[in-house]
Amino acid sequence: MLTEKESQQRVFRLQEMLRNKGVQAALLVLPIDIYYFTGTRQNAILWIPADGQPLLLVRKSLSRAREESPIADIRPFPSSKEFASVFSEAYLTIGMTFDAIPVQQHTYYSRALPGRTFVDISMMIRELRSVKSPFELEQLRKSAGKLASVFAEVPQFLKAGMRELDLSAEMEYRLRKAGHEGYVRMRAFNQELFFGLAVSSSGGADGGFFDGPVTGKGLSSASPHGASYDEILVNKPILLDYAGVFNGYIADMTRMFVIGSLDAELQRAFDVAIDIQEMVSQAMKPGAISEELFLAAASMADKAGLGSCFMGMPGEQAKFVGHGVGLELDELPVLAKGFTAPLQAGQVIAVEPKFVIPGKGVIGIENTFIVTDDGGQRLSDLPDDIVFLEV
Amino acid sequence: MLTEKESQQRVFRLQEMLRNKGVQAALLVLPIDIYYFTGTRQNAILWIPADGQPLLLVRKSLSRAREESPIADIRPFPSSKEFASVFSEAYLTIGMTFDAIPVQQHTYYSRALPGRTFVDISMMIRELRSVKSPFELEQLRKSAGKLASVFAEVPQFLKAGMRELDLSAEMEYRLRKAGHEGYVRMRAFNQELFFGLAVSSSGGADGGFFDGPVTGKGLSSASPHGASYDEILVNKPILLDYAGVFNGYIADMTRMFVIGSLDAELQRAFDVAIDIQEMVSQAMKPGAISEELFLAAASMADKAGLGSCFMGMPGEQAKFVGHGVGLELDELPVLAKGFTAPLQAGQVIAVEPKFVIPGKGVIGIENTFIVTDDGGQRLSDLPDDIVFLEV
Repeated sequence: MLTEKESQQRVFRLQEMLRNKGVQAALLVLPIDIYYFTGTRQNAILWIPADGQPLLLVRKSLSRAREESPIADIRPFPSSKEFASVFSEAYLTIGMTFDAIPVQQHTYYSRALPGRTFVDISMMIRELRSVKSPFELEQLRKSAGKLASVFAEVPQFLKAGMRELDLSAEMEYRLRKAGHEGYVRMRAFNQELFFGLAVSSSGGADGGFFDGPVTGKGLSSASPHGASYDEILVNKPILLDYAGVFNGYIADMTRMFVIGSLDAELQRAFDVAIDIQEMVSQAMKPGAISEELFLAAASMADKAGLGSCFMGMPGEQAKFVGHGVGLELDELPVLAKGFTAPLQAGQVIAVEPKFVIPGKGVIGIENTFIVTDDGGQRLSDLPDDIVFLEV
Repeated sequence: MLTEKESQQRVFRLQEMLRNKGVQAALLVLPIDIYYFTGTRQNAILWIPADGQPLLLVRKSLSRAREESPIADIRPFPSSKEFASVFSEAYLTIGMTFDAIPVQQHTYYSRALPGRTFVDISMMIRELRSVKSPFELEQLRKSAGKLASVFAEVPQFLKAGMRELDLSAEMEYRLRKAGHEGYVRMRAFNQELFFGLAVSSSGGADGGFFDGPVTGKGLSSASPHGASYDEILVNKPILLDYAGVFNGYIADMTRMFVIGSLDAELQRAFDVAIDIQEMVSQAMKPGAISEELFLAAASMADKAGLGSCFMGMPGEQAKFVGHGVGLELDELPVLAKGFTAPLQAGQVIAVEPKFVIPGKGVIGIENTFIVTDDGGQRLSDLPDDIVFLEV
């Protein structure tokens, strides 16, 4: 549960950002943004003036929003006729998250509040949410711990001849019983993910829509990501990349498994991935520039002769080496080209150097780290080593 | 796989609708809309002129889009500078789906194609997609069949004392192994669902954000829907409401289970739900008015003295009795107040009369039906009866 104090601190930080940008109020309609400030994910909108108390207007369920949220002023959603009267006409410039809300929502509120100017505060909200509080870091540690404990069980159920789908089902079943909430939230409107990826053999070296190094073949062209019907083979890399969602907070982790032995080139690529992870995690201090960490990682891949398959198939390479996580899988900061803001203490980043080698498969590592003065602090201590199982 | 012929038929139907509305082209950016016309769900945009050939512009993965789609003209996504030159300036009025695409997307394409007027074609696309082809009906029948076969296994794993979460995990595990694709697509931007709902006891009588009769307690205020940590008790109604997603197509089904015996009022409410389902399914013929079916259903609930708990908790009642399904869970038509369009043959509707009786729990039925001249045709023949298990 979100405490009143923490809710107020989040609201204060946003209000400061709003005032700095000359925005008089935020009108938030995306459920997870509302949850961040209020502790409740009901069907609602949240009004945060730059200089006053927040107001949560709830369509459904009002009783549940009141039970869950420390926000003082929670009311039923007003009718169209009453809507404008709820908001003072003094607030002329209103921020909304244009990255995530549909055009129809923007149109509805523009008409409901005539005479106001609506501006995009997507980056403001995303930057604010990228720096985690001690409470949030504790949630993320718990998520990583539960996720790691299921990863540790993989040798009990991974068998040659099972389908990628069966392996995925076993992972999902155990994660779910551990309290995984299932739905993995992503902010990008054209991305989607179900739990994670269990891919092996050529499965990892298929192209795909996902904004990451690996998409997976999936079960059909309608759901072309994650596990496929392909059988798990011996002497092939088996990649498990799963998001652990507990109490809303997402930790992200990848481990490699092999039944039998591994091709020497893949082993070498794995070792390079570990070196890149080590370099990036040591550099993850406040003030470090995201873009520079990506470029340094790409340069290490180049020097190892693996530049053309770093972070994706040749021709489909993702141009990042890490991404923020929190209440969404695709938070800020992104360790990628074009991201020049300095890192801040308390940001949480999944670092995932991976190589996709056509004809051989996909290999790499992923752990979630907190940005601290001493560099990246790992959220879990599960060993990184490839897990070799007997044939 | 989508055939070239079927893809062309879908495009032709849209082109006719565009011409009727004076819209010169559609620019589709929501992945599932693109999948409907092209058979591929990659990161792409789809241009369909009212009088020419469609053009698919792919960010990632181009190779996979070309493998999967029968569309003739598939090209890499152009750079910002080249973008405008790809589209003839003769197309001045361009339709986009404002219900689903973020403001930033609209802004991006407005700037990339200056001088054009962008209009909302959300309802056009949703109406087009609501009428299923024989191929789509076959997919939906297969989805319903697989979903029903897992429902039939419930007596093997449902036990008193297990948590709702455990029951949900067992359902999900079996559905997944049967080929369930996991991710349940919903069009409404503030709705989300993980697989379905396993709720019992008071779990079903909690309020919730979900636009349906039952939300479930969920595992936390961050993911407040579906199964909770509550134990399954004897002599209480246990509701399982699951979406079956196979090859992209979603069938929706609810069945009731009881370990021991059931309260007489709940049994009576169940019988009324069955009567309502029978009335609605018989009336589901082309030309029937959605709103009238809902009002007739609500009237039957009223006459049975159950009006105040029909389709939700008192005060949080959903105002529908059925919803279209297909590639998304929340398709047209909706059997609800305000929906006055006549039904069309080939529409597919999940009919789900349910009652939420405070202090006693939730009870009801759900099956997916095709609108035909003979009334609703069920997609699966799993019996509707409450399944009673011994304590």
